[in-house]
This record gives sequence, structure tokens and C-alpha cells, in this order.
Amino acid sequence: SPPSKSSYHSLFTSPSLSDNFSISNHLHTLTRRPHVAGSEANAEAAAYVLSIFTSSNIQSHIASYEVSLTYPVSRSLTLARPPPEPPTTFNLRQEIYDGDPYADVADQVQPTFHAYAKSGNVSGPVVYVNYGRVEDYMTLKEMGVNVSGAIALAKYGKIYRGDIVKTAYAAGAIGVLVYTDRKDYGGGGGDVRWFPDDKWMPPSGVQVGSVYKGLGDPTTPGWASTRECERLSEEEVEKGGDVPLIPSLPVSAADGETILRSIGGQVADEDWQGSKDAPTYRLGPGPGIVHLNYTGKQIIGTIQNVIGVIEGAEEPDRFVILGNHRDAWTFGAVDPNSGTAALLEIAERLGKMQKKGWKPRRTIVLCNWDAEEYGLIGSTEWVEENRETLASRAVAYLNVDCAVSGPGFHASATPQLDELLKRATQQVQDPDNSSQSIYDSWVSSNNSLLIERLGDGGSDFAAFVQHVGIPAVAMFFGGGYPVYHSMYDDFIWMEKYGDPMFRRHVAVASVWGLVALWLADEEFLPYNYLSYSQELQMYTKELEDRISDKNVSLTPLFKSIEELTKAATTVNNQIKEMKERKGWASIWNKDPLKVRELNDRQMMTERAFTDRDGLYGRSWYKHLIYGPSEHDDYGSSFFPGIDYAIEKAKTENTTETWHLVQREVWKVSRAIRHASLVLKGELT
Amino acid sequence: SPPSKSSYHSLFTSPSLSDNFSISNHLHTLTRRPHVAGSEANAEAAAYVLSIFTSSNIQSHIASYEVSLTYPVSRSLTLARPPPEPPTTFNLRQEIYDGDPYADVADQVQPTFHAYAKSGNVSGPVVYVNYGRVEDYMTLKEMGVNVSGAIALAKYGKIYRGDIVKTAYAAGAIGVLVYTDRKDYGGGGGDVRWFPDDKWMPPSGVQVGSVYKGLGDPTTPGWASTRECERLSEEEVEKGGDVPLIPSLPVSAADGETILRSIGGQVADEDWQGSKDAPTYRLGPGPGIVHLNYTGKQIIGTIQNVIGVIEGAEEPDRFVILGNHRDAWTFGAVDPNSGTAALLEIAERLGKMQKKGWKPRRTIVLCNWDAEEYGLIGSTEWVEENRETLASRAVAYLNVDCAVSGPGFHASATPQLDELLKRATQQVQDPDNSSQSIYDSWVSSNNSLLIERLGDGGSDFAAFVQHVGIPAVAMFFGGGYPVYHSMYDDFIWMEKYGDPMFRRHVAVASVWGLVALWLADEEFLPYNYLSYSQELQMYTKELEDRISDKNVSLTPLFKSIEELTKAATTVNNQIKEMKERKGWASIWNKDPLKVRELNDRQMMTERAFTDRDGLYGRSWYKHLIYGPSEHDDYGSSFFPGIDYAIEKAKTENTTETWHLVQREVWKVSRAIRHASLVLKGELT
Ligand SMILES: [Ca+2]
Ligand SMILES: [Ca+2]
Ligand SMILES: [Zn+2]
Ligand SMILES: [Zn+2]
Ligand SMILES: [Zn+2]
Ligand SMILES: [Zn+2]
Repeated sequence: SPPSKSSYHSLFTSPSLSDNFSISNHLHTLTRRPHVAGSEANAEAAAYVLSIFTSSNIQSHIASYEVSLTYPVSRSLTLARPPPEPPTTFNLRQEIYDGDPYADVADQVQPTFHAYAKSGNVSGPVVYVNYGRVEDYMTLKEMGVNVSGAIALAKYGKIYRGDIVKTAYAAGAIGVLVYTDRKDYGGGGGDVRWFPDDKWMPPSGVQVGSVYKGLGDPTTPGWASTRECERLSEEEVEKGGDVPLIPSLPVSAADGETILRSIGGQVADEDWQGSKDAPTYRLGPGPGIVHLNYTGKQIIGTIQNVIGVIEGAEEPDRFVILGNHRDAWTFGAVDPNSGTAALLEIAERLGKMQKKGWKPRRTIVLCNWDAEEYGLIGSTEWVEENRETLASRAVAYLNVDCAVSGPGFHASATPQLDELLKRATQQVQDPDNSSQSIYDSWVSSNNSLLIERLGDGGSDFAAFVQHVGIPAVAMFFGGGYPVYHSMYDDFIWMEKYGDPMFRRHVAVASVWGLVALWLADEEFLPYNYLSYSQELQMYTKELEDRISDKNVSLTPLFKSIEELTKAATTVNNQIKEMKERKGWASIWNKDPLKVRELNDRQMMTERAFTDRDGLYGRSWYKHLIYGPSEHDDYGSSFFPGIDYAIEKAKTENTTETWHLVQREVWKVSRAIRHASLVLKGELT
Repeated sequence: SPPSKSSYHSLFTSPSLSDNFSISNHLHTLTRRPHVAGSEANAEAAAYVLSIFTSSNIQSHIASYEVSLTYPVSRSLTLARPPPEPPTTFNLRQEIYDGDPYADVADQVQPTFHAYAKSGNVSGPVVYVNYGRVEDYMTLKEMGVNVSGAIALAKYGKIYRGDIVKTAYAAGAIGVLVYTDRKDYGGGGGDVRWFPDDKWMPPSGVQVGSVYKGLGDPTTPGWASTRECERLSEEEVEKGGDVPLIPSLPVSAADGETILRSIGGQVADEDWQGSKDAPTYRLGPGPGIVHLNYTGKQIIGTIQNVIGVIEGAEEPDRFVILGNHRDAWTFGAVDPNSGTAALLEIAERLGKMQKKGWKPRRTIVLCNWDAEEYGLIGSTEWVEENRETLASRAVAYLNVDCAVSGPGFHASATPQLDELLKRATQQVQDPDNSSQSIYDSWVSSNNSLLIERLGDGGSDFAAFVQHVGIPAVAMFFGGGYPVYHSMYDDFIWMEKYGDPMFRRHVAVASVWGLVALWLADEEFLPYNYLSYSQELQMYTKELEDRISDKNVSLTPLFKSIEELTKAATTVNNQIKEMKERKGWASIWNKDPLKVRELNDRQMMTERAFTDRDGLYGRSWYKHLIYGPSEHDDYGSSFFPGIDYAIEKAKTENTTETWHLVQREVWKVSRAIRHASLVLKGELT
């Protein structure tokens, strides 16, 4: 008889199929040149991914889209100070260090800029706005600092940069500069050294990125950017509210500090200050006056998702999807090609398993996305195009973006996959402690078994979870890292600081692949909805604390969650019973349609958490349990519709606005009830 | 070996299982008393349906909802004329004829009224507005007749009465009377006789009905009216725009004629006039002045859907759903209990087949809806509650409302079921011509093989098709009939004029049940999407003629339809191939998951014609191919979003409004593309 599925799964994570040398080679090849979305270098990288997929016996093709992308055309930034100090013109360049092996291709790095920044020529006094959050502007208001007509100088570090610009605009700023403070990215100042001598961001390093707040091509909201499709005009895009209406530019720690020195006025709060040896940060406005002139060009460029498909032998119409993006702002060693290297490792392992006779029960789809950096564009366009098919066939989406930037396992998931994720980490050795599993290290870490949720717009899971309602997982080793989105995110940095032995890469490939294999091969889909109902109950209790003094009833929520708990228990028992029965008479009692029925109920339950009308005022977002928080696309919130309504009600505090909170509570509880009916599989 | 499926299907339509006597008995029992939604009599009728289902070995239950219903409390209508003529006070009663066997329960008929009419006390000069359509008001405007401040007197007959009231309100009317003209319902006047001596409406007969334009309980738009659910306030309901804002009342032909005699002013056009012996119809306003005082009460009442389930032996999670409503404005012999009697006949035939060993492959669900008359409430609430489950499991919905009101077969369908419907009519004898099939008579009739579409709000298919995207069929013998929604729609009328031998009832049960049986039992679902793409092409060509002089490109539509045609051809070939292969080696080659995959693609294709965001401004309507036309809920339009945009653009004729037509064209073409991708079953 052929080897069992589980022996293949053991093989998958075994040393015989794991190859850190090959991963390192993949990463080295992928990061030879900067490869921003739409560039020839990124098309070359796509061809490389395609070739590895194909040579691993995976049927592959390129899914192209024509999307709106922006590139910088000209930038100038000068600072005028009160006489006698001379004005400063910033050179806006990231320095090449002595012996940098990438010096000859450094000019292929895009000049530092913000994707989708508004072109414009503005000058005004500078106001220091800390991290540029809503609460920071509230502090400024309390202190009597007027941002109107000023250029806001904000630090990166707490919220998505698109929200920094949007919030500054709302406060009346006419331009925005965003810099990386040494305290956050430079190791804290003092005699700390920086790349290549240490992992920290060099003083000239600039964190570039997008300031677009939407998902997918801004000119095709909700539909795929196929050739000759409908497109919004620039005017319509601006009306949509997701692109900035004032110019902005990212600047280095050094330039940020120069500008900070030009600002007078009140001294900023202690927690707004920089590292010990930094100057005293003051709020302004001025007297330093910044003149920012930015011109970008918007083009329709071709992007390329590489899609590889291993067709399921028994259930070809059920998809387990793995995804990672390929495009990078610069070299992309951490972000995102550590993930791409892991994906290629998985492809190769699966190729070898196929040679040994393994075939997945369900279809496995490997996706290598383009233009994630611009706004999750490659994945979003593909999901928008395949929405209906995915809605009826996708079992799960498994995302890895930056796979490795250091030690320490982190994960996110929709809750029905929590258990599976934990189970997988038990099967894989901790790359930083060979005496225990990733799970063991995770248990004893600061973030002990903490699983984040997937309501934010931080990577390519967003369209899968928030637009279609597909169970999902994301994972990585490390976390925030100093050279993020700068020219220094290259192979040298990875080799020296991120993952010298590439064992963390191997570990990510193992966990990621194992989760996929179990989802693809196990007869009964390994979901557990009890975790979901427990999470929901926790959120509702938090909500209760938050609005205990308000006239809002959470009873409908609690009731619907109770119903979900019952349905989850029932389905778990049914599976257990059927497994036992199958074991007892496995041949003559085989009934693939009965198993399918149980699996489908669970697969479709996540879909039922979405609402067709979507979030109020943000209708692309269909998921009612997880979505982005209003003022930070990198922030995830539970019950985003309720959350938004509460924020509004707290501000306006009218009967009407609190009534809207109650309406959102009803809406969510109905979605949970729909989910429990689907999980039960019964008609009322 | 057990009898084959097809021998059971032949049995189903054979004389041995057909029982016109039993159908007549069912109808007689169901129509003993008036049984409006929410009444005790209707609960009794529900119990009867439940008992027949149960005794036919069908697992049954009642799905109740708590919904907003209205009843009349007081009505008065007087007509003042210029002196010396005395004022008339109308008694607003439908007369009981000599020997009426239902005389003793006639007082259980609700006083004539409009459900959800606005309560109010208004008086004003009368304007005659013909059928109350938008074009009728345009004629009035051209003729200089001002409706503002007047009471509109409209005839029933062309559009939904809710639209009569809404359009009158938009024209400035302060109240509306709607009467049944003898020319339309009375046999044309002259020496024509009426019920009980002929089929025509008596002069005192009144067509009651709803004037609510929405679907489902007005207080729960989009969600189910379960006990203790969220409800809109009366104010919020009125803001929604689907309930009338001025009072209205239905009146008899006699009362309508009396009022018409009081109207002076210009003589109405020839085609606005009544039957030969009618007075000359003039337009007004006045001098006749009507005083209308109407008070209704709005309550939350319990309604009861009776649901019977025959679980599928092989695919229990695929549903073939048959539906018919039970509630009636009065006795409901035609509307709707001719359909209920047919449904009970089907239940009994299936019960007998089960005794002989038949089990359906898929689950058959029999639904007997409540409160259809008020606004498709029973079916809509159930669909809203079970939306997610239905979306992933429903194969088709088969509706019969008025099963029989005379001879002549009529049908509607979503186009992938056209072929099946024709096939079924070939298997059933024409009840009015025993020498040929229904199909043969249909071919040679005026409406030769005409299959209407299901975009209107005329019966309980609406939520299934337009809200969820479920393939559907509806059928009946006869059509519009004179005593519609009056007190005279009783068993006597049916026995004398509608179906004296109850053979038409038998025939409806046979066709309806056979369509259901084939959908439930055939291994490969009997859809054909080539009919769909042909229909779409026809619509697009019609569209092309309609806007040929406008700067709107229909290329995206034509392209997407071409893609659908290709996908339909492919799937048809795949099925053919698989059937042949199965025939060749039917036992060892049986692969239920492969068959399921092909079936699912086709089942879900209809879903893909829906858009989650729905029609612009009417977001409950998710279907982009079929929906109600803007000014008539009884009118069905194709591409309702495009249709609406064109009407608007024709009125406003700006670049902007024509641009919106183009956007709607894009939207529909994307839905068709989604459908073709689902039908192909491939990821891009
Ligand atoms: Ca798009
Ligand atoms: Ca409702
Ligand atoms: Zn990334
Ligand atoms: Zn990134
Ligand atoms: Zn009816
Ligand atoms: Zn009716």
C-alpha cells in the first residue's frame, strides 16, 4: 500500500527535505536588484519564481493586471531658519557604505518618496506632531498649537503612514514630512552603531512606502484591473477619500533632526522627546519654514502575480491558498522576499513529495503577489476577479509577508484555525533552540500563544478575510526591524542580523507548509469554531466594559454567540462520531458526500461573518468581526462597525448616535446568527 | 433491483397517483373561511397544510415570524357635487348574492382597504388619472390638468397599486381612490352578467391589496423578523420610501363610475374611456369633491410558514424548494389556494412514492408561505433568515401562486431552467385537450413557448431570485381573472369558471412536481446556461437599439456574454462526456465528488449574477440581470440598474447621467464575467 498521508507530512518537515542553503540562494537571487512593482527587475523576479514553481512540477501561470502605480519625478526640500542661519537644502539620499556589494545597483532604487503622494509645491512653518495620531493632534490643540497652514513633521512608528497624512490634512496641514526617529529605528542614539556595523537604521536611511489608504488599484475599487476594464478618473479617485490631498515626503532620521532643531515654541511632552542625546523637541509652529516641492507621475503599469496550482486528487474544487508578495521598495531581503524564499522552499518540497507519489486531496494554490507595497494591489485584484469562485471553494488563505527579521515566532489567524496553528508549531523545531519546538518557545515567550487577528490592512490577507470571508493565517519570525522599507533591507542585512543560518526561514517554510498540507490532506477539515465563539465572547465582554454606562443592549450579541457555541459543539461531535464510524468500517462506509457536507458547513461559516452591504461608509469591507480601525489601517479592530459607531457616538454623544451603535450591535449579532445556522446546516 | 428513478417519475404523473377529487377537497377545505395573514382562520389553514404534509410522511414544522401587518379600523367616503345634486355616502360593501353558501362567513372578510395605507382625513376635487402610470400623469400635464391638492381616481389594471399611490403622491395628490373599471374586470359592460351568473366581477366587487412597495416586513428590511429582533420605527419606515404617505382606498366599479360622473373639465382621450355604456370620462379637477377618511391599525402579528422536508438520500445538503402562499385577502380559491391544493397533491403523491421505496437524491423542501399578500412577507423573512444556507445549498426555487384561474399554460423562469420546463410540459397531458401535451398546446397558443422572467415582485420567487440569486421557475393556468382579490374569489367561482373538473390543478401539480423531481433526482443537474447567454445577448441587442445614438459602449457586455457562451458550451460538453463515460463503466467509475463539482459550478453561476452591493439606491435587490422596473413592482425588467440609469439619463440628459449608464453597463458585464468564471470553475 502507498505511504500514508501522515508519513508524507512527516517527510515534509524532516531534515531530508529542508534546505537552508537553497533558501539562502533563492533569497540571494531574488534580492540582487531593487525590484519595485512595475519594474523590469520585478518581472525578472517573477520569471524566477515561475521557473522554480514549474521545475517543482507545479502547473504555473502569470496573472497580470494593469494597475495605477506612482513613481517620483522630482523632489526638493529646503529649510529656512531665522537669520543669520543659512537655509538648508536636503539631498534626500540614502548613503552607500564602503564596501557595499550593492553599490553598483543602488541607483536603481527609487528616489525616496511616498506612493500616491499628491504632487505639490508648498511652504510653511513646521509643527512637530509626534506620531501623527488623532490623539497627538488633540494634545496639540490642548496646548494651543495651530497646525493650520503648517507643514507637519511626524515620526513613523505607531500608525500607517497613509493615516499620518490623512490626519494631518484633517488638522489643516498643507504638507507632511515623516521621519524615522533614532529612538525608534536607530537603536536609541548614543554610541550605537548602524548598518553595516549593526542592525540599526543609518542616519541617512529613509523608510519609503505608500500613503494610499484603500486596497487594490485606486482606479478600480471593488473590481479587477483587467485589460480594458472600467477605471475611475483621477477626480473620482480623489473624491473616494483614500488618496492624500496634500504632498508628503519621507525623510531620514538626520534630516528629521535638522528640522526639529529649527522648531521653537513650547517644549513637547516627555514622551514626545527623542533619544538621550537628541535635541529638545519643541512643537512650533516654526520659526523653521520648510519648502517642499514634490512631483510624482501616475501610470498604468503591468503587475504580475505568479500562480502555481497542484490540483487536488479527490477534491480539486477546494482550494488551500498560500500567498506572499514579491515586489519590494528596495532589495526586499526581509520585506517580502524572506517570505518568497520560504514559498519557493515549500514548492520544492512539494515537488519532491509529488515525485514520491504524494498527491494532495484538495487543490493547493501558491500565489506570489505583485504590488503589495502600493496597497495590496496584486492580491486584491486577483481576489476581486476570482471573488465568486473563491467564495464557494476556498478553504483557507495562508499569508507570509516578511517571513524573517529576527528570532521569535508570531502569528495571526481567524480563530477557527488557532488550534491547527498551535498543532503545527508543535511539529517544528525552534530554529533558535534545537531542544524544543516552536510551540514550546512560543509558550514561554512574552507573547505566550498570543494569536493576533486579521482585521488590518498590513498584508495580502486583507482581501481574502475582509472582502470575501476566507479563514486565514499569517506568521513570521522577528517583527518590526530597523531597516524596514529602506535601502538597507538587503541580503547582507539578512545574513548578518536577520537569519544568519537561514534556519528561521526553514522553520517558517515548515510551519506554513504543514498548515497547508493538513488543510489540503485531512479528510475532515481541521477547523474548530469553539475558538471563534470564545473570542467573540471575549470581545463582547470588552465591549460591555467600554459602554457599560450607555443605553446599548448587548443581549443580541451574547445570544447569537451562545447559538454559535452550540452549533460549534454539535459539529465537533458530529465529526468525532463520523470519524469513529469511519474507523470502524472504513471501506464500505466511505461516503465522500457526507464528509463534504460537514466540511462545507465549516468552510462557509466564515463567509457568513461577512455582510453583503459591508461596513457603513466603507462598503468594500464585508467582514463584520474583523476590520481596520478607523484612524489606522495597520490597526485591527474587532466588530469594526460597532467600534466606529462608538467612536462617533462618544464624540457627538446624541441619542441618535448611540442608537446607531445599537443598530451596529444588531447587525453583528445577525451575522453571527447566520454563521451558526450555516454551521448547523439546517433551515429554520 | 429497485425501480429506476425514471419509473418513479412516470408514476408521479400517471393517473394512478393523480387525484382531482382530492385536490378539489383540499381547496374546499382551505377556502371555507376568509383567511387573511395573522388571522385565526389562517392559522387553522396552516394546521391543515401541516397535517397533510405530515400524513404524507414529510417531516414538517412551522417557521413563524413576528411581522408588521395592517388592518382597517374605520373608513368613510363621501362625494359632494355641485348643487342641487345631493352628496353621496358610499357604503363600501361587497354584496352577498342570493344563495351564496358563504353568506354566513362573509362578515369575516376584512372591510375593503389597502394594506399599509396611510391613515388620514382628506378632501379635495377629483382628478381622473386613468391607470395612474407615469405616462398618464404626463398626458395630464400636457393637457394642463393640475393634480396638486386633488384626490386621484385611478383604474386598476396596468401597474401595481403601490405604484399607483406613489406616483399620485409624486404628482401632488393628497389621496387616492382605485377602482376596477367594468371594461377591464366586468366583461365590458352592456348586458354582460356577473358572478354568480358569469365569471365577471359584480359591480360592488372591490379589489383589495397592499400598497407597500417593499419586500418583507417593512420594519425589518434585509433581516428576518424573528422574535425580539431589531425593528425600524414608524418614522424610519416612512423615510425608507416604500410605504405611502397619503391615504388611499380601493372602490368598486359602481362607486368608481359614480365618482366619474361627478367629474367635469376636459374629456379624456379615447383610450382612457370606459365600456360602451359607460358615461363619458372627464379629467377634472372636480367639480366633484371627495372626502376620504381612513384609519388603519398597524400591529405586530404572528405569521406561519409551513415547511416540509424530504431529506435527500445522497445529497441532503442540496435543496429543491417548492413554494406557494396560503394567506388570502378573502377566500382565496384562485389566489392562492389553487396553488396550495396543488402543493398538497404533490405532497400526497410524494408520500405514496416514498411508500413504494422512492427517496430523492437531493432534499426536497415544500414551503407554504404566509403574508404574501402584504408584501411577500413570509417567504422574504424566511429567505432573509436562511440566506447564507440557501446561498450555498439551494438548487432551485419553484413557485406557484394562483395555480389555476382558467385554461392556458403560462410560465416564467430564470433561463437556465427553460429547457427543463419545456421538457416537463411535454410529459403532461393538456387538461383541456386530452389528445396532446401541455407543450403542444403551448406551442400553438398565442404565447407560443413564451417564458417570462422573474424580475418583478409579483410573488414569492422575488427574494429567492432577486436577493440571493437562486434559479427559479413559476407557472400557472389561466392568468388575470375578474374577481381577483375580491370577496368573490371563492370555491364556487373556481368550480363554475376556473377549473370545473380540477384537471388543470392536476396538470399544474404534475408539471410543478416533475420539474422538482428531475432537479432532485437527476445525477447531473438539468440546467442549461446556453439559454441564459442567448437571453442576455437578446437583451443587449435591445439595449443597443434603445441607446444607439448615445455615447455608451456596450462592448464590455457583448464580450462578457461571449465568455459566458463559451463557458456554457464547455460545461455542457463536460457533462456529456462524463455521462458517456459513466454509462460505459458505471459502477467502478462512479465519482460523486466529480459530479458534484460540475453541478456546483452551475448552481453557483446564478449566484454570480448578483452583486453584493446591489442595485444603486435599491440595495436589497442584488440581482443585476432581473429586477423590478422602477415605476411598477409588477413589471420585470432586464438589467434593472442599466434600465434605471437610462431612464434618469433620458430625463436629465447630461454627460454625467450618461456616464452613469456606462458605469452600470460595466457593473453588469463584470457580473456576467464572474458568472462565466464560476461556470468554468477556474481561477485566473
Ligand atoms: Ca480593483
Ligand atoms: Ca425582513
Ligand atoms: Zn511586505
Ligand atoms: Zn512592505
Ligand atoms: Zn397570490
Ligand atoms: Zn394576491
